[in-house]
Amino acid sequence: MSTTHEPAPPPPYGELSPADTGLLSPVRAGSPAEAATSDTACLQALLDAEAALARVQAGFGTVPERAAAVITATARAEHFDVRALAVAARAAANPVVALVRVLGETVARKDPEAAHSVHQGSTSQDVLDTGLMLVAARTVELILTDLDRTADALAALAARHRDTPMAARTLGQHAVPTTFGLKAAGWLQGVIDAAERLRRVRTSGLPVQLGGAAGTMAGYLEYARVVADLAPDALDRYSRRLPAAYAAELGLAAPAVPWHTVRTPLADLAAALTLTGSVLGTFAADVQLLSRTETAEVSEPGAEGRGASSAMPHKRNPALAALVRSAAYQLPGLASTLAHAAVTDDERPAGAWHAEWEPLRAALRLAGGAAHTAAELAAGLTVHDGRMRANLALTGGLVVSERLAAALSPDLGRAPAKALVSAASARAATEGRHLADVLAETPELTGLHDADALRALCAPEHYTGAAGALVDRVLARHRDTRPHGRG
Amino acid sequence: MSTTHEPAPPPPYGELSPADTGLLSPVRAGSPAEAATSDTACLQALLDAEAALARVQAGFGTVPERAAAVITATARAEHFDVRALAVAARAAANPVVALVRVLGETVARKDPEAAHSVHQGSTSQDVLDTGLMLVAARTVELILTDLDRTADALAALAARHRDTPMAARTLGQHAVPTTFGLKAAGWLQGVIDAAERLRRVRTSGLPVQLGGAAGTMAGYLEYARVVADLAPDALDRYSRRLPAAYAAELGLAAPAVPWHTVRTPLADLAAALTLTGSVLGTFAADVQLLSRTETAEVSEPGAEGRGASSAMPHKRNPALAALVRSAAYQLPGLASTLAHAAVTDDERPAGAWHAEWEPLRAALRLAGGAAHTAAELAAGLTVHDGRMRANLALTGGLVVSERLAAALSPDLGRAPAKALVSAASARAATEGRHLADVLAETPELTGLHDADALRALCAPEHYTGAAGALVDRVLARHRDTRPHGRG
Amino acid sequence: MSTTHEPAPPPPYGELSPADTGLLSPVRAGSPAEAATSDTACLQALLDAEAALARVQAGFGTVPERAAAVITATARAEHFDVRALAVAARAAANPVVALVRVLGETVARKDPEAAHSVHQGSTSQDVLDTGLMLVAARTVELILTDLDRTADALAALAARHRDTPMAARTLGQHAVPTTFGLKAAGWLQGVIDAAERLRRVRTSGLPVQLGGAAGTMAGYLEYARVVADLAPDALDRYSRRLPAAYAAELGLAAPAVPWHTVRTPLADLAAALTLTGSVLGTFAADVQLLSRTETAEVSEPGAEGRGASSAMPHKRNPALAALVRSAAYQLPGLASTLAHAAVTDDERPAGAWHAEWEPLRAALRLAGGAAHTAAELAAGLTVHDGRMRANLALTGGLVVSERLAAALSPDLGRAPAKALVSAASARAATEGRHLADVLAETPELTGLHDADALRALCAPEHYTGAAGALVDRVLARHRDTRPHGRG
Amino acid sequence: MSTTHEPAPPPPYGELSPADTGLLSPVRAGSPAEAATSDTACLQALLDAEAALARVQAGFGTVPERAAAVITATARAEHFDVRALAVAARAAANPVVALVRVLGETVARKDPEAAHSVHQGSTSQDVLDTGLMLVAARTVELILTDLDRTADALAALAARHRDTPMAARTLGQHAVPTTFGLKAAGWLQGVIDAAERLRRVRTSGLPVQLGGAAGTMAGYLEYARVVADLAPDALDRYSRRLPAAYAAELGLAAPAVPWHTVRTPLADLAAALTLTGSVLGTFAADVQLLSRTETAEVSEPGAEGRGASSAMPHKRNPALAALVRSAAYQLPGLASTLAHAAVTDDERPAGAWHAEWEPLRAALRLAGGAAHTAAELAAGLTVHDGRMRANLALTGGLVVSERLAAALSPDLGRAPAKALVSAASARAATEGRHLADVLAETPELTGLHDADALRALCAPEHYTGAAGALVDRVLARHRDTRPHGRG
Repeated sequence: MSTTHEPAPPPPYGELSPADTGLLSPVRAGSPAEAATSDTACLQALLDAEAALARVQAGFGTVPERAAAVITATARAEHFDVRALAVAARAAANPVVALVRVLGETVARKDPEAAHSVHQGSTSQDVLDTGLMLVAARTVELILTDLDRTADALAALAARHRDTPMAARTLGQHAVPTTFGLKAAGWLQGVIDAAERLRRVRTSGLPVQLGGAAGTMAGYLEYARVVADLAPDALDRYSRRLPAAYAAELGLAAPAVPWHTVRTPLADLAAALTLTGSVLGTFAADVQLLSRTETAEVSEPGAEGRGASSAMPHKRNPALAALVRSAAYQLPGLASTLAHAAVTDDERPAGAWHAEWEPLRAALRLAGGAAHTAAELAAGLTVHDGRMRANLALTGGLVVSERLAAALSPDLGRAPAKALVSAASARAATEGRHLADVLAETPELTGLHDADALRALCAPEHYTGAAGALVDRVLARHRDTRPHGRG
Repeated sequence: MSTTHEPAPPPPYGELSPADTGLLSPVRAGSPAEAATSDTACLQALLDAEAALARVQAGFGTVPERAAAVITATARAEHFDVRALAVAARAAANPVVALVRVLGETVARKDPEAAHSVHQGSTSQDVLDTGLMLVAARTVELILTDLDRTADALAALAARHRDTPMAARTLGQHAVPTTFGLKAAGWLQGVIDAAERLRRVRTSGLPVQLGGAAGTMAGYLEYARVVADLAPDALDRYSRRLPAAYAAELGLAAPAVPWHTVRTPLADLAAALTLTGSVLGTFAADVQLLSRTETAEVSEPGAEGRGASSAMPHKRNPALAALVRSAAYQLPGLASTLAHAAVTDDERPAGAWHAEWEPLRAALRLAGGAAHTAAELAAGLTVHDGRMRANLALTGGLVVSERLAAALSPDLGRAPAKALVSAASARAATEGRHLADVLAETPELTGLHDADALRALCAPEHYTGAAGALVDRVLARHRDTRPHGRG
Repeated sequence: MSTTHEPAPPPPYGELSPADTGLLSPVRAGSPAEAATSDTACLQALLDAEAALARVQAGFGTVPERAAAVITATARAEHFDVRALAVAARAAANPVVALVRVLGETVARKDPEAAHSVHQGSTSQDVLDTGLMLVAARTVELILTDLDRTADALAALAARHRDTPMAARTLGQHAVPTTFGLKAAGWLQGVIDAAERLRRVRTSGLPVQLGGAAGTMAGYLEYARVVADLAPDALDRYSRRLPAAYAAELGLAAPAVPWHTVRTPLADLAAALTLTGSVLGTFAADVQLLSRTETAEVSEPGAEGRGASSAMPHKRNPALAALVRSAAYQLPGLASTLAHAAVTDDERPAGAWHAEWEPLRAALRLAGGAAHTAAELAAGLTVHDGRMRANLALTGGLVVSERLAAALSPDLGRAPAKALVSAASARAATEGRHLADVLAETPELTGLHDADALRALCAPEHYTGAAGALVDRVLARHRDTRPHGRG
Repeated sequence: MSTTHEPAPPPPYGELSPADTGLLSPVRAGSPAEAATSDTACLQALLDAEAALARVQAGFGTVPERAAAVITATARAEHFDVRALAVAARAAANPVVALVRVLGETVARKDPEAAHSVHQGSTSQDVLDTGLMLVAARTVELILTDLDRTADALAALAARHRDTPMAARTLGQHAVPTTFGLKAAGWLQGVIDAAERLRRVRTSGLPVQLGGAAGTMAGYLEYARVVADLAPDALDRYSRRLPAAYAAELGLAAPAVPWHTVRTPLADLAAALTLTGSVLGTFAADVQLLSRTETAEVSEPGAEGRGASSAMPHKRNPALAALVRSAAYQLPGLASTLAHAAVTDDERPAGAWHAEWEPLRAALRLAGGAAHTAAELAAGLTVHDGRMRANLALTGGLVVSERLAAALSPDLGRAPAKALVSAASARAATEGRHLADVLAETPELTGLHDADALRALCAPEHYTGAAGALVDRVLARHRDTRPHGRG
């Protein structure tokens, strides 16, 4: 490439907003998961974590009830300048230190005494981990809703096309017949798997964090001792009850012990989100292949402006599938970052922990955006079964050669049957004739199978194996795993 | 860098073995997992998959019993040239095609008729997926054994040092006191989490594959129809019973439906192996930090030649920890490859499927090598509790400043208490004196706490919060999750 | 973990801003790179690409000059609703289609005729690729400025501490002596490497994109033919001159041919950004190790609020290093996403291209934030050379045992020398004495080296090899590669 | 999935070879790169590094010539048990410590005095890094040979089909016409880019390592002082000349300074290998799409057994393309591991360095296997230009609607022209007629363009823009960058 000229002077960014609103990530722009993971939503979750902590301590008498009430009333995101907090976060390498300071000051203006109960006994990681688990819990609910919508739509497709024959393709080549129902059931199977894992994570895998400065809970206990004058065995019970109550207050799981350096919750969550991307990416990849101009077996749902090309006015692009795949491409790299960050050290890792937050948010968003988009794609997918039959006929019966080798073996022996079918297939391909016609002229078959029988054996729609039964099994699994009352 | 000269002529590789035996991966060299994942072990698993298929079909009468017996007797890895199969695999992009041909020829030499029953109705992916699940199942058992050994050793450390005080460190700095027992319990918690997930995968997550050419099971059913003359409803039952029997025969799970393009089993397995690497990597990273020359709180087990340096004869390197971490570094990248490959298309992806095999093997090996090495590290770890106490004293009481701010607040009020402790801490740090001594001179505290009381408040071993109780909880979890009769 | 309760109802996100402003990514909050990659900055770059295209076409007479002027005047980000464009981008899977429509409408309101010249002959990918290269070019300039600042500060450290002895550590253990100058020179070497690669990318690796609907430039040529009545050979010249002029107009490189499906520019850029993260991460990791409480050889720069802990008021965390490392953790995963997306297909990949945008932006930001933070860290790093000497003495001379084995070999022979040093080292370690003292009592050395000579041989500061010369070489490289007139 | 039964007892692995010979990685089985990276080849490279070190020191008089000769004669891989070394490597976490011991013992049996000169002044990392750079250099040469072969074959395809029209596809849909020549030129462009980067790395990016125990070169200098009695300024020169001579001896680059903790060479190499995978993966992905049954525009080269399916005898799978893509899938994850490992610390990282070896080897192999396979694929690719024309006609002229909108605009005005073409396109699509026929009936065009002119405007082969000229430019670049005398 040629040497470059001086670049045009950059615009005066200082006057422009530094905010991102999804311009480079259309798969999640405007999706529920995007809203649930925005900076404001994250800030609210941090504040929810602080307020719930105060209320729960108040429940045990270690914080005044009135203080908890004032803190709760103050802990609303709209009272805070999220951008200022973001910039201030650089000083301590996390946003909680500044947030606690501002929260304390704001509470103090209402009730100076209450300010002392803000963040009592706590540490930044307790609040940040709990806050992000809360963001995750809220977002996973939204993702599950969209996965359930996707699953319902795919189940309807699988049921409707249970017996619609089409060519199965392996390594891009027609192989044997299958049904569109089984293909849709395969997509559904993946979506059920992902939803099942996400639901498990949601139910029991997103714990509050409550360890104090270094995971011993010492700060919480010391204030309990000092304020409520608890005896040692009462303190021991408190160390168990406090996290349980905190979890109940926030609708999260109660951890066995603090998990500052044991990042299993993030690993489980990342695995479930990545699988979500993989199974939706598979659905999208198949839609792309099936909607190629030469194949044309399915079409994306039409919509105002959907899939328009700026250069080619006649063309309707499969835009939803491209969006879904864009998310599937990005999730594994984010999960690998989280896995590296899960190798912690000391009582709080310096860098690894800090590297989790943005990839976690991005993963929630991308999985959520993909699910939201996939639901639209699945609900509106148009199936061209006539084209499926036409394509299936393209190879003139060769897609059932496997069957013929089996079917003719009782009469001819296995090796001769295979050889005969192989030779007939080659001849059919070379001469551009249907395999049934070539076979009908084969002397070895004379008297064994007449032309009609051979045609029947060669009919692709008669060689779909257990496709229908397999579809039924996936549909049954869908019914069984569907959350009660939603279907 | 300078321009290079011509390189020395490469050695005549053609005459040397192309084999790898672990020279560049000492973490797994000689480990049980390495043996269980070698090419020979993989070949045997593929042969086991073929033989079991024949036996199971024989059980349903769709293959002659005698053929199944001959196939089983022939399906021994030592009868095959694994390198020749590896090279031949290029023709079809997978090793099963060549294996089936050679297996068929070998069987035919014993019993020509039996050869027709080799791989009946099957497809390469059925055999390869099943074979790799078998390799995974066998290897995961070995990994679990080493994780259980690691857990037992860590549990013993946690119990023995339940109350051994040491400095907790966050971002590398002394924070507050903790105990070595709690640190060991944290490692144990991670190991239990990983083992729990691996055990779940082993129990129900490693299914046989039985879909035939394109996932419809058509080939299996056609032979059943032709050979055993099954009626349609019998075929339907057969489509359910055949995979169940196959699973039972091989000790694997029975899948709901074929999973050629739904790669959940690999995703679950990869997630569990990656978590294994993360938690063992955390243990190793902590051992490295604690054994640094200046810290010296733990030492790796000594062994003949262990940790020797070629340049520095006096030096004993923490070699086991380095090996474990080398595995933890490699696992996330392999998992991300598997996640990308899980976006499939058509009825068999062309490239994605082929990209799974080597990373899966590598992940099993690295996790297995890490577990084997960690078990040795945990069992032999030497703990220097005197040094822990000495290091804890380094900051002259500053590690308990959090406590003092709390403890003094009833007398002084919270804000004054914080300010007083902060000022005293600064003075102690500047003057190199103990915080208790500085506080003893503080006028505000006169009459409130005498020197002895202040010393007691400043004793780090009195400020370990719920550390002991938390250790007990993790130990209880260890007992509960320990496989019956092994502990 | 326990089963969870119902979560608290999520806040009404719809009323809150969906924008991100860096709350979860403090390493880049407020950095120059963040501003240069914001949605608004990206939008402006897309508009710059559109406007420059019109001006360049006007220069060749294929667009009216007046139209180009109106388009240029209109193409200001502040005239557009970036959030509305982000959401509208879902329809076509990229934001350019909607942008072109709105730009056309806005231009039309000023000059209906000029609107026809908007995006003439172009395609979304031309504008988006060019716009992102422009964003990259502008951001890389800012990163280079911060890398140069970092390099200058590290060079000053290396020069100042050229001969400050300290312990070299391998696998965490004291090995032999080195100098802090050489350590800083190592960091500097890495920074120079990264800057060199970024500068190469900036100079010749960021090309405009100008291929039209499918990379043939047909649309551009057709309008040139129709509007300017160019003959075939003039069209051929135009196909070469148009991209060259476009590149000159935007300060980017001119590509050999369109690169819609050949993503080398992104691969080169990603590699340079990832290396930037690795070398800055290395610097940060060393700062973290050297500033550990027990080691205390360096301190981070103090700053108002810097490193404050919410739980431990006395503690100053190495916050800048943690921020830098958080970026280093995230870059490899983003680069791996870009590498996967570089496997394209057809004339525009459906999903892979769309997956590049957000990771590219994130990588620019993280590298930029890391460089900005590292410059602050390097400029303010405090070096405690007294502590370095004290730590070096910790092993009582064992760090020079390598030297003694060499130095004594002429007199004793190599094997006896090694054995003697090894035995003496062991004795020194066991008895807690200095190696020189133990050696002074060794009969074999009587008459060969007196106590003073042995002390001199054992002085760590006399055994730093070529450290000084190596520092000088890196400093010379720094001077040579420093952009002219900036240092 | 159902609960599993007990697994079949694992085979007695202990008696089987633990070696890998490529069974799970057919893309590299039998390839030149595989041989050049085998354990034996790596062992030989380590021995080459040791022997060259002795010879170079002998050249400076710091090692006896005779010793260097004996060491060189002994340093042959066939004298060593590579598996024993692999297992022994666990003790020190790297294989060099054991290798040096065995090499020393073997040399000692020939010449006891010479044994003292083995590994003189050196450290494991010097030998291992240098050895792996040697492996890389040798393997990169082989990869370049295969990339050059691939490039030549693609250049021939691009030249032969410079003007063969075919449909360009974006997001899977026919867009506008292009040529197969331009498509092949796009593949070629990528291959040239990758080869250029690999060649740059080979020429100047693979340095020897020569830093001694901690990167100060102290051991080398101490022996030089003791053995050759060098004065300080001679030692300074020696510190510069020794690595230069070592580099010359091995055909590698001379580094500015030791790079134990500055891993730029691995980053550059990994980037070039990953790009190699991406560009070859793109070629393979296109071959897969173009050879799909419905499209059938290209076929893979036929070969005995190539692409055979075990289930479908009639089917020829695009096996080479699948192999190439399997490599492209795996490279980004390996590169991300190397990038993480490039964040080093201290004077030698404990785990990160150890994590580099296997991924580096795997990356060399996969890129080498992909290049070897791609060369075969490119050389034998069959192009069906008749089918390309037939497919191009599928949309009845709609692929040139972009052109018509431009071509009709002088007569009708731009907006009316677009609207007219859009309406006509819709009508053509609905009625299944050719766009030219529909346009010929359009009243607005009466008298402006007759039917023949409209047919000519609609001929796809007349609307390929600058495709021919662009092909020529890539071919010229191919000629320019082709290594002299090889083409």
